Formats: sequence, structure tokens, C-alpha cells
Amino acid sequence: MSDSPYQTLCHAVADASLLGATSSILSWDQETQMPQQGVELRSRQMAQLARLAHQMGSRPEIGHALQRAIESPEVAGDPAKAANVREMRRDFDRRTKLPARLVEELARVSSSAQHEWAAARKDSDFKRFLPFLDRLVELNREQADCLGVPEGGERWDALAELYEPGCRAAQVSAVFAPLRTRLVSLIDRIKGATKGPSDRFNQEPFSIDRQREFMRWTAERIGFDFSRGRLDQSTHPFCGGSHCRDVRMTTRYKETCLNDALGSTMHEAGHGMYEQGLPFEHVGTPLGEAVSLGIHESQSRLWENQVGRSAAFWQWLTPQLPAMLGESASRYSAEELYGAANIVEPGFIRVEADEATYNLHIMVRFELERALIGGSLDPKDLPGAWNEKYKEYLGLTVPEDRVGCLQDVHWSMGAFGYFPTYTLGTLYAAQFFDTACRSSPGLGDGFRRGEFAPLRHWLNANIHVHGRRFLPGDLCERVTGGPLSAEHFLTYLEGKLLPLYGLA
Amino acid sequence: MSDSPYQTLCHAVADASLLGATSSILSWDQETQMPQQGVELRSRQMAQLARLAHQMGSRPEIGHALQRAIESPEVAGDPAKAANVREMRRDFDRRTKLPARLVEELARVSSSAQHEWAAARKDSDFKRFLPFLDRLVELNREQADCLGVPEGGERWDALAELYEPGCRAAQVSAVFAPLRTRLVSLIDRIKGATKGPSDRFNQEPFSIDRQREFMRWTAERIGFDFSRGRLDQSTHPFCGGSHCRDVRMTTRYKETCLNDALGSTMHEAGHGMYEQGLPFEHVGTPLGEAVSLGIHESQSRLWENQVGRSAAFWQWLTPQLPAMLGESASRYSAEELYGAANIVEPGFIRVEADEATYNLHIMVRFELERALIGGSLDPKDLPGAWNEKYKEYLGLTVPEDRVGCLQDVHWSMGAFGYFPTYTLGTLYAAQFFDTACRSSPGLGDGFRRGEFAPLRHWLNANIHVHGRRFLPGDLCERVTGGPLSAEHFLTYLEGKLLPLYGLA
Repeated sequence: MSDSPYQTLCHAVADASLLGATSSILSWDQETQMPQQGVELRSRQMAQLARLAHQMGSRPEIGHALQRAIESPEVAGDPAKAANVREMRRDFDRRTKLPARLVEELARVSSSAQHEWAAARKDSDFKRFLPFLDRLVELNREQADCLGVPEGGERWDALAELYEPGCRAAQVSAVFAPLRTRLVSLIDRIKGATKGPSDRFNQEPFSIDRQREFMRWTAERIGFDFSRGRLDQSTHPFCGGSHCRDVRMTTRYKETCLNDALGSTMHEAGHGMYEQGLPFEHVGTPLGEAVSLGIHESQSRLWENQVGRSAAFWQWLTPQLPAMLGESASRYSAEELYGAANIVEPGFIRVEADEATYNLHIMVRFELERALIGGSLDPKDLPGAWNEKYKEYLGLTVPEDRVGCLQDVHWSMGAFGYFPTYTLGTLYAAQFFDTACRSSPGLGDGFRRGEFAPLRHWLNANIHVHGRRFLPGDLCERVTGGPLSAEHFLTYLEGKLLPLYGLA
Repeated sequence: MSDSPYQTLCHAVADASLLGATSSILSWDQETQMPQQGVELRSRQMAQLARLAHQMGSRPEIGHALQRAIESPEVAGDPAKAANVREMRRDFDRRTKLPARLVEELARVSSSAQHEWAAARKDSDFKRFLPFLDRLVELNREQADCLGVPEGGERWDALAELYEPGCRAAQVSAVFAPLRTRLVSLIDRIKGATKGPSDRFNQEPFSIDRQREFMRWTAERIGFDFSRGRLDQSTHPFCGGSHCRDVRMTTRYKETCLNDALGSTMHEAGHGMYEQGLPFEHVGTPLGEAVSLGIHESQSRLWENQVGRSAAFWQWLTPQLPAMLGESASRYSAEELYGAANIVEPGFIRVEADEATYNLHIMVRFELERALIGGSLDPKDLPGAWNEKYKEYLGLTVPEDRVGCLQDVHWSMGAFGYFPTYTLGTLYAAQFFDTACRSSPGLGDGFRRGEFAPLRHWLNANIHVHGRRFLPGDLCERVTGGPLSAEHFLTYLEGKLLPLYGLA
């Protein structure tokens, strides 16, 4: 029996996607295994795979197969298949809307820009980076026009769509506004607090070898499946790999701060368990892929924060520490460790920020990139605008661009519209977690006994298993019964931090 | 300025070859890193890369580019470029001579055959494997006809050509005949010896962690460059990686036999240093590739045996052992360790064989595969023929096919004409080493002081740097002044083993 139009389409799409899986293993290898001198040829390999994947994924045959599948009764009569085809169409349109010239130019410029950015950041020399930023903003405005600005929307929306389907600047702004007000006020109260948690534990040294075993043990206990994944070490932690049966996550270790490795491990394991929860039978097609960066981030934040920074989690973990990390760990109570994992301290660097201030870092970036792409901010004025917002939102005077507008790699990679997904993920996490706890009372309390399977199963059944069947906003409505709101997160955060700082 | 016909050809060939480099990293990953459940999708990735590489490497455009390059004065006037084009032509012809149907059938049958072979070996059930062997012999006879039997040669030659250009069964046979006579007689004398080395050291346990550090240290000391390569662990040691700046070798560890890991490490480091010695400026074209399996094996055998089983090597290594492996190592003299690395003991299993008996294992296989492909041996009669030869050459009665004709994976992979390259490599190693020692007196003696660079530099300059510029036979003549002969190896082996067994 020959394949149906739907099956033909799925095979063609999965075949192109397989090259992406290969590319992903090569990236992981580059960050964790590759000998230092391998880099030159590796970048040629990566460029070749990207070119071939783009060619295969935008072949006119896929366009025809899409058309035939859309018209077939098999697809019309099956909502899951229809959703799969809808998303394949989205990917195909995106690929074919961009002229090859623009794709290559973006790749070329962002490759040099990343190099220049690294040098500029090192010397805190914004002028060196400026011509590249100028060109990247220009090319991204052009990209937005090719992709098509959504009706009633703006250019930034077309770019954000690449990371978060359905995301609109106006809606992000509406969600962020109350969040900012309440966070600024919360942080102000904390700054004025006369008591607060001790960070003694964050100065306690533990051997890296022991930390490594401990992180593996922890990831396994919360439910990361090592027969379908790995945990390695890299400078910047990430979660990659090629599919749900081969998930590669990394963490990093500092001798004097266990919470650094633990936070990264919980975070990446959240991403990793999402990937492992995707259905293997749909591998290579949208039903076997994650919804969006925001939903992905909701999974990592949820395990990192709602689980890993909860009092129940530390009640379970604390008595286990001395056996795994050495006797010095026995000098800490669960209460102290819970506090040490929840210290709030405004700083310049986003990736080092705590749960409360983190989102203010994101808002600064969102507002500035929206203005850059919208044309109301000239790239040359970025440092001034950046520093002004840091003063206003975080109360900090940025001393140099290295710890200011040059700190992140994203814009140098040509990624505009990406940053808000971090905060969207944070908000989704709180909203999902509230729903999970309401639907299974006692779920959060089980952490005290090391019981994480109920939460994992709830996430599997309500989020992971659907792949890209629902758009992020629709998934949120379906799972939680309402649209995304900052309220869940704020209630959670205030409920945790105010007592810790004696402000309840 | 536009590319010359030669440059155009090189770019096209290197582009196709890049996919092979990618494939090689994925294979390495599969053997050393991949989580267990990754296997299903990984085999799809490998098949896709093989298909794409074949498509890219046999495009008619490459045929045209070859023709234009051959006719260009740039190539006609430059022997190195001419050799590069000669080898690109060889590769292209090989790819285009085989009908796609046959390539796919071979891939399909050998994939199932490997699976059945593994099961058949486990149960020592030759009948289970027989239908696959039958079919593989048939397909390989067909493959030989497509590739073209060399004038005056036989079908086996056409297959051996895939691994060892210029290799002919008649010549192999002429080289192997005196080798067999002298080896059988040497082994007989050793079997009758009343004294011999002690294997006490091969029972001494050392922690795997310490062995691991020690192997890395040893590989580094003999000259493997870790900024351009890695050493990992796998069930079957191998050397892979994608190019001379990213060489991935592996070894294996047994707690109670340091010489197992050391022999593997020295062997794979020999392969690895060959790869690292290939010229990066020719990466992706034949001038940047190894000549043949036989020449590759000469490099591994040379470091494993001529270096790693020499008295001078153990005089250097022995005093270093206690610090690296623990105090128990101090109970051994250099002389005892040299002996322990050179024990001769006929056995059934090729991969566990010593330096003397190993080649008899190869001769059995060569003679049998030559007869299978030639048609004078029916696959169903393989076990009987195998056991007869083991009796004759090694004096052993094979108790079951598991340790007899089912022990090797090669034929199940459809690889006929491969086995002799192991012994050719052994013979080339001895002949190259003799030449190196003649041209730099004191070179072997330097091992006593841990001086390995002179040998490595000699191999770099005389062998590695040429890539595939010379065919194996021509390289041997050029480097050693004469054709391949078993005499160098026999003199070396008798000169070492007879005194060790008190027979000198």
C-alpha cells in the first residue's frame, strides 16, 4: 500500500528535520567534547548542514505535498493531523518567504558580529560593535518585512513569531506592565528589610567530583531518564540533543557555590524532561516538537524555581547532603538552605540574577529591542537608553557597557524578539504549577518525601505529549483555563520572599 | 578571480567529504557517548548522511570538473595535484560504477546480516548466519564485476582494491607463504621452550581511574596531540574523528590487565598520530587522507609493537609506573615487564592474539575469503574449512563456531578483502621501522629516555605528509627502497622472541 498524502508529507518533513538532529549533536559535541583545534572545520560542517537542511525543508515538493495533505480527508477529519500540517505549513512558509540572499547575509553578518561582540565586550568598547548592531537591526527589519508583519501589529512581532508563535509586543507589554510595578515595589521592600536569609552556604566549598555525582543523582531523582539522555559540563549550560530519546543537557560547576550547579541542573533537567516527554512516534514533525521557547522555558523555570527553590524540596534534600557532599554539609538546616537558595540581590548581570530581579533585566531588553526594530531608538543611543532603564528599574548605575548593553550574545546572533520568552516562561511556569497543584492537592507537599513523579506525569500529560498541537496561548487556556497572567507568579513570589525577609 | 578547474574540483570533492566527517563524529558519539535509547534514530541519521554523501560525491558535475581539471595545465604540470586528481577520479569511478540498486541491497543485507551474525555467534549457530553469508558472497561477486576485475587478476582483487589500492591476491599469497612457514616453525619452537616470560604482571590489578590517567599520559608522551584529539573508552577500541585536527581514539580497560589497555592505546595512538600528521591544507581531498588500511595499520602496529613491546620502551616506562599506578607496580623489573608484553600463546580468538600468532589468524581468513569469492569454497562448507586450517596453522581444535568462523564481524558487514590489510600493516611496520632506524641510528635507543619525537617526525616526513599521493606499493618502494617483504618482520620477531624463550 502506498503512503497517504499525509504520510508522504510527514516523511519528507522528518527527513529534512533529521539533519537538524545531526546538527544538534555536533553543536553539543562542540561545547562539551571537541578538541580545541577542531573549531575551523566544525564551523564548515555546521554551515553545510544548515544549508542542506534549508534546501531540503524548502523543496517545492514539500509545498505540493502540503497542498495535497491539506486537501485530504485523512487530515481534514483528524484534529491532531490537521495541527501537524498547520505547523508544517508555518515552517515551510517561514523558510520560503526569506530570500536565500537575506538568509546568507544574516548568517554571514551575525557570524562576524558574534566575533566582534566578544571582543567589544572584553574591552567594553560599544563603538566596535555598533556597525554590526546597525547592520543587524537593518537586516532584521528587512527580515520582518519578508516574513510579514501581523495585521495590526508591528515589525518586532514578525521576529518574535520565530520563537513564540502568536506573540505580540502589545500583549507582552500589557502583561509586563503590572509585573514591573509589583516587582519594583517588592524589591524595594526587600532592599529595606532588616533581616533576611544567610548566604553562608553559598561560600561553602564542595569538590567538583562530588558535585558532579550529586547533580546526576538529583537529575535522576526528579525524573530525568539517563537511558535517554546525558548530563555533561559546559561553560554556558544548555539542553540540546537530537530527539526525545537522546537529550543532552549540561551544567557548570563552581567549587564555592553548589547552588550555581544545582540551579543550572534543575533548570536544564526541566528542559530535558520536556524533550523526553515529547512523543517519539512523531519525531521529526511538529507533533514531536516543543511548542515555543516560552513554553520550553516554563518547564525549566518550574523545576528550577517552583520545585528547586521550595521549602519542601530543601526539607527532602538537606538530610541527604552530608553523605553525598561531605560532612561540612551537616552544619546547615533545611531552613537555612531554603533561604540560601532564595537570596534577592539586584545586580548588573542577567544570567546571575535572582528570581525577582531577573524579569526586570528582561523588560529592559524587550523595551529596547522593540524600539530598535520599531525605529524609535537609534542603535548608537543604545548604551544611554540601557543605563537609564537600569537606574529606573533596578536602581543601579551601570559602570561600563561590558556589564551593560554588551553583556548578552543574543543581538549579536541576530536574535531580536527572543528575550521576552524568558519571562513568558517564568509566568507560564507559575500558572501551570498553580493548576497542577489545584488538580492534585498534596503534589507540592510530596517534594518533602522526594516524590516528583506526580508533577512530572502531570506535565507529561498536559503539556509534553501534545508537541506543537496547540499554540502557546491556546495551550495556556486549555491547561489553566485562562490566558497568561502575571498574577500567579507575583502571588507565588511575594508569598515566598516576604516571609523570608521578615516582611510578611 | 574565479576558481581554476582544479580548485573547483577540490571544493566539490571536499564538500561531499565533509558529510563523511560529520558521519564519523556521529559514529564516535554512538560508541562512546550516546544514551542507550538513541540507537534507532541514530541509524536513520547515519543512513541519511551516507545517502547524501554518495549523492554529492557522484554528481555528474564532479565528473565534468574531473575532466576539466585533468586537461588543465595546472594539473598536468604539478605531480602532487595530478596525484590528487588521480585519486579523486578513483573515488568517483568507484562510486559511479556501482548501480544504486546494488549499493542499497548491500547496505540492506549487511545491516540484517550483522544483526543475525551477532545472534548466531551468541548461540554458535552457523546455520542461522548461512543464508546471509550466501547472499553477501553473491552480492560481493556482483560488486567485484561492477568494479571491474583487474587484468590478469581475480574477483577478490576488485574488492581488496576498496581497502588497499593495488592489492592483488596473488601477490599477497606470495608474501604470506614464506611468512607462514617461518611463523609456524617459530611458534612450534616456542611451544617446546622450557623457559619463557612470566605473565604475573598481566594478573596485577590496577584501578581503572589510574589506568585512564596513565593511558592519557602515555599517549601524550609518545606524541598524540590532545589539542587536536581525544582518548575515550569503548567496547572495541578504534580511531575515528573527522580530520587531522579532530582525531577521536578509544581504548578499553580491564582491571587485571594493564597491557590490554596499553596495547590498545599504543595501537590507536599510532592510527591517531597518522591522522594528525595528514596535511590540513588538503583536508577533504585525497592528499589530506590516509593511503590505505594497510598503511594505516602499519602506523598502529609500529607504535604498538616496534615501540610498545620493545625492551627500550619498558626500560623507560617501568620506573614511572609506581607513581602513576600505585606501589604494587614497584615489584616488577623492566625486564619482567618487557617479557610480560611479549608472551606467545596460540588461541582461538584473533583480537586476543599475540604478535606471532596473529598473522596466522589473518592467513586463514584471507585464504577462505579468497576461495569464497573465487567460488571454490561453498559458504556452507566454511566451518569445516576454517577448523581444518586452525588445526594446520595453529595446532588448535576449534570447539565451536562461536570461537571459530563466527568470531569476526567483517564478513557480516559485507567486507571481503579487508583482513589481509592487518598483516600487510604488520609487515609494512617492520619494514618502515628498519628504514627509520637505519636513517637515524640511535632512534630506537632513544625510547629508553622517553624520546619518541625522532620516530614521529620521521613518520610525519616520510609517510603522513604525503596523504594519498603515492599508492601503498609505491610508497613502500619510495620510503624503504624495496617492495614489501616479510623478511623485516620475521627478523624482528625472531630476534625478539627467541631470546625471551631461551632459544637464541
